[in-house]
Amino acid sequence: MTTQQLIEQIHLKNSFLCIGLDTDLEKIPPHLLKEEDPIFTFNKSIIDATHHLCVAYKPNIAFYEAYGLKGWQALEKTIAYLNKEYPDIFTIADAKRGDIGNTSTRYAKAFFEDLSFDSITVAPYMGKDSVEPFLAFTDKHTILLALTSNEGAYDFQTKLMDGKALYKTVLETSKGYTNSKNLMYVVGATKASYLAEIRNIVPDNFLLVPGVGAQGGSLSEVCKYGMNKNVGLLINSSRGIIYASRKEDYVQAAAKKAKELQSQMTRELKKLK
Amino acid sequence: MTTQQLIEQIHLKNSFLCIGLDTDLEKIPPHLLKEEDPIFTFNKSIIDATHHLCVAYKPNIAFYEAYGLKGWQALEKTIAYLNKEYPDIFTIADAKRGDIGNTSTRYAKAFFEDLSFDSITVAPYMGKDSVEPFLAFTDKHTILLALTSNEGAYDFQTKLMDGKALYKTVLETSKGYTNSKNLMYVVGATKASYLAEIRNIVPDNFLLVPGVGAQGGSLSEVCKYGMNKNVGLLINSSRGIIYASRKEDYVQAAAKKAKELQSQMTRELKKLK
Repeated sequence: MTTQQLIEQIHLKNSFLCIGLDTDLEKIPPHLLKEEDPIFTFNKSIIDATHHLCVAYKPNIAFYEAYGLKGWQALEKTIAYLNKEYPDIFTIADAKRGDIGNTSTRYAKAFFEDLSFDSITVAPYMGKDSVEPFLAFTDKHTILLALTSNEGAYDFQTKLMDGKALYKTVLETSKGYTNSKNLMYVVGATKASYLAEIRNIVPDNFLLVPGVGAQGGSLSEVCKYGMNKNVGLLINSSRGIIYASRKEDYVQAAAKKAKELQSQMTRELKKLK
Repeated sequence: MTTQQLIEQIHLKNSFLCIGLDTDLEKIPPHLLKEEDPIFTFNKSIIDATHHLCVAYKPNIAFYEAYGLKGWQALEKTIAYLNKEYPDIFTIADAKRGDIGNTSTRYAKAFFEDLSFDSITVAPYMGKDSVEPFLAFTDKHTILLALTSNEGAYDFQTKLMDGKALYKTVLETSKGYTNSKNLMYVVGATKASYLAEIRNIVPDNFLLVPGVGAQGGSLSEVCKYGMNKNVGLLINSSRGIIYASRKEDYVQAAAKKAKELQSQMTRELKKLK
């Protein structure tokens, strides 16, 4: 999916919501545990109930790896289902991978080719030759960690490097990577006050913003400082939507929460026009 | 496996060699491709031929993820085989993971509990609460990326932060993490000249050193600057050993290359006494 197609979908659906499929067998409704593949059953029902309210889904790969082979099977089924039934949805493998060149290429093939994700999150620590193998897939997007939503972000990301915070150096340096127009960046909503400066450095790239809801970030703050003329934002909510209820009504509860966010987003999008 | 047990194994085998199981179907001997599980067959034969010459094996997880379910199955079989047949071997999941707290715990469970690895490599970019969930497994080791062997290491790792290179800040900051005595660090052999300074910051921790051989690092340089009184080094070689031959003699060729490195290591260990 191209950036242009993603922007069109945002305007069509009046939403820039991404739903995180962080599926945890200890948190899904207990009645699903008797299903043959409870993870996929849960994902499928959440997707069917919310696909018209969001433009992206983001499975965090840790949740699938934690279940070994069964987890990988559920991930494969989930992405195959999304690509077949809802091909206009932007898909994100939240994997935070990164390794030396030929090894990053392996990860890129796994997620872009075998699983057919549209994008993957990548950690920047190993630099250019760990990121460019992902960018070499020119019809895909690479989403680089810049400023994350957790407390540990202050350990290194906000520390000054040559007089400038590390995350800014990451943003600026990555602009020089081959095919950098296909970069997006992870910026935590808990750091909304940093967004204006981030927009100065990367005015055009999309930002993937986790941490609205469960982690305490504010949607209107993020939009105020982070939106650009092409929207430029994907705002993720995981637990707040998918675990809205643990009872038989979990599907309706998830759709209701997604609808609330989508309605707020519709109002924010009107400000652009 | 405790650090003390690892040190004992090093002295018992006169070796601090780690063999990287970066198993690639395009590089293993073609006659193995007719096997039901060529990846595991290859790994098993390499392990059987080299286990007495090394103290650790390190599968890079990217190579297994690239083959989807079959790859995971081969990884599971490989680690199960190692733990059953050679329980004195230290095992490293080279995964370079790292995510917000509860998600890192998922990765930790996947590699430490389900797969029963002794250790995992972790990326530091997200800071304390992305690393400590791994350290919470007090009978395991967490191997933090410090200074990697690739060119991209110069993008951020060696840049000055508050007047100090980022990798040094990573080393120093991580010493304050809970259970940091169970930390090891990745330091590329191509950066051997940095080792003396690294030893000043982390005199006691083990260093996992990739990049000897195929990537051009020198074993004697690494030992000169990196060894401490408890050896404190695990030196990894992957391609130089496992792909020493693509013919029927690949097992013997791998053992020969491992033996060469082990002999050099025996000489280096004598200098300690």
